[in-house]
Amino acid sequence: MKKHLVEPGKKIKLSERDPQDIGDFKGGKEEGLKAISKLNEKLQELQELLYAEGRHKVLVVLQAMDTGGKDGAIRRVFDGVNPQGVKVASFKVPTGEELAHDFLWRIHKQTPASGEIVIFNRSHYEDVLVVRVHGYVDKNVWSKRYEQINAFERILAENGTTILKFFLHISKDEQKERLQARLDDPTKHWKFSLGDLDERKLWGDYQAAYEDVLNKTSSTHAPWYIVPANRKWYRDLVISKILVETLENLNMKYPEPKDDLSGIVIE
Amino acid sequence: MKKHLVEPGKKIKLSERDPQDIGDFKGGKEEGLKAISKLNEKLQELQELLYAEGRHKVLVVLQAMDTGGKDGAIRRVFDGVNPQGVKVASFKVPTGEELAHDFLWRIHKQTPASGEIVIFNRSHYEDVLVVRVHGYVDKNVWSKRYEQINAFERILAENGTTILKFFLHISKDEQKERLQARLDDPTKHWKFSLGDLDERKLWGDYQAAYEDVLNKTSSTHAPWYIVPANRKWYRDLVISKILVETLENLNMKYPEPKDDLSGIVIE
Repeated sequence: MKKHLVEPGKKIKLSERDPQDIGDFKGGKEEGLKAISKLNEKLQELQELLYAEGRHKVLVVLQAMDTGGKDGAIRRVFDGVNPQGVKVASFKVPTGEELAHDFLWRIHKQTPASGEIVIFNRSHYEDVLVVRVHGYVDKNVWSKRYEQINAFERILAENGTTILKFFLHISKDEQKERLQARLDDPTKHWKFSLGDLDERKLWGDYQAAYEDVLNKTSSTHAPWYIVPANRKWYRDLVISKILVETLENLNMKYPEPKDDLSGIVIE
Repeated sequence: MKKHLVEPGKKIKLSERDPQDIGDFKGGKEEGLKAISKLNEKLQELQELLYAEGRHKVLVVLQAMDTGGKDGAIRRVFDGVNPQGVKVASFKVPTGEELAHDFLWRIHKQTPASGEIVIFNRSHYEDVLVVRVHGYVDKNVWSKRYEQINAFERILAENGTTILKFFLHISKDEQKERLQARLDDPTKHWKFSLGDLDERKLWGDYQAAYEDVLNKTSSTHAPWYIVPANRKWYRDLVISKILVETLENLNMKYPEPKDDLSGIVIE
C-alpha cells in the first residue's frame, strides 16, 4: 500500500496516478471483496480494543471529487463496526456562527476523543478546495491555510491522535458515468442538482487544488494516500488495509481491571 | 408487539412482566434471528429514505439495568445501517459544565436533526434513576423531573421528533449470570468494577425507580416499551420490529429533484 502514500516532501502529479490502478493486488473483484471482508473482521476487533484501551484517538479524513465514493467507502469499510465507537462528521456549507470563527473552529469540535474513531466526510480541506476554486476568500487568505492545517494536525497528533487522510481518486470519465447513472435512476434524482454539473466544469481547477493539498499537507504525522477509486472494491480494500495496519501498529492492549477481582463472589 | 407497550395512563408492575417472555412469537432463536435479519434489511432502506426525505427526526432511548444489553442491541439492530445517518449518544457522569446547567441541557444538544436517527445509550432518565437511588439530589428536585421530562419530550415531538423508549428488562438471576460470565473471561475484566456489585445490591430500589419512570413518562408521543431481554434474540427482535413499523408508519417519500432534470446532458 506504500505506493499510494504521498511521501512527505516529495511532489506528486495527479495526472501520473492512475484511478484505475489496482497496485500489486493479485486478483480481481471477487478476491478483493474476500480480502475486504477479512480486514473488516480485524477492524471490528481493533476498534473494540481501541475503545477498551481508551488511549488513542483516530481521525480518518475522506476527500474526493463529487461521486468519488466517500459515502460508499464509509458504509463498506465500517460495516458492522460498533457504531458507539465510530462517528461520522459531515461538513456542509458553514453556518453564520461557524463563518464568524476561524475555519478550524468547527473542525476541532468534531475531532475524536480517546478510544474513538471519527471519520470526516469532507473536512477542513474544503477551505483550500471549494473555497479556493470559487474564490470565496482571497488568495492571501487561503494560501496561508496549508501551513495552518499542518500546525493544527501536528497539535492533534502530539496529543494522541492518529491521522489518516485518503483522497479518493476517480477519473473524469468515471465521474461522467456515475452522474449519468444517477440521472438514469429516478430514485437517485433527489441527490442530483444542476450545480453538480457546474462543479464538473471546474474539474481542472479542482485537480490543481487537490495537487497542492497533497503536496503541501502530507506529513509523517498526518499522511495523505491517493486511493485509486474507479474500482470501488479496490478503493475499499486500500482504505481497509491501511486502517487495519495502522491500528495494528499501535500495539494496543486491553487495560487491567480497575479493581482486584480475585475471589469475588456475585450474590 | 402491542403487549410490550406501556399504555399511557395505565399502571404496570415490573414484577408482572416476565423477562423470559417471547410474546406470541412462533419459533425459537433460529427463526428469531431470521426475522431480525429481514427487519434489518428494511431498516437499512427506511433509514436511507428518512435521510433522503430529511423531514423526520428519530430518537431511540435505551435504558436497562447493568448488563441489560444496550450495547449488544445497538450493534445487532443497527448492523449495516449507514453510519452517517445514525448517531449514538452515550451519557456518562456529567461534567462540571453540564452540572451547572439544568439536567436536560446536555440532552437537548444530542437530539436528532432532520433525517437523523439518534440512539441514547442511557439518557435523561438517569436523572430519575441513579440520581434518585443514590440521593444525589433531594426528592423535591427529582420528583418534579417526570413532568419536566414529559414537557421536554412533547416539545421534541411537536417539532418533528419520533420518540421510542425501550426498557431492556432482565431478571436478577440473568444479571448474575452475565456478571459471572464477565468475571470468568479475563478479556472482559476491564469492563468490571466492584461498583457494579454495589449497584446490584440496590436492585430493588432501581426496579422501583424504573417502575415510576415507566408509569409516569409513557405518553402517546413518547411511549415506553418493556422489552423482555433475558433472551438476546427476542430483545433485538422486539426493538427491530417496533422501529421498522414506526418508520413505515411515517409514510415517507423520496423528495422531488431540486432542478428540472429533463434533457440534461453530461459533458
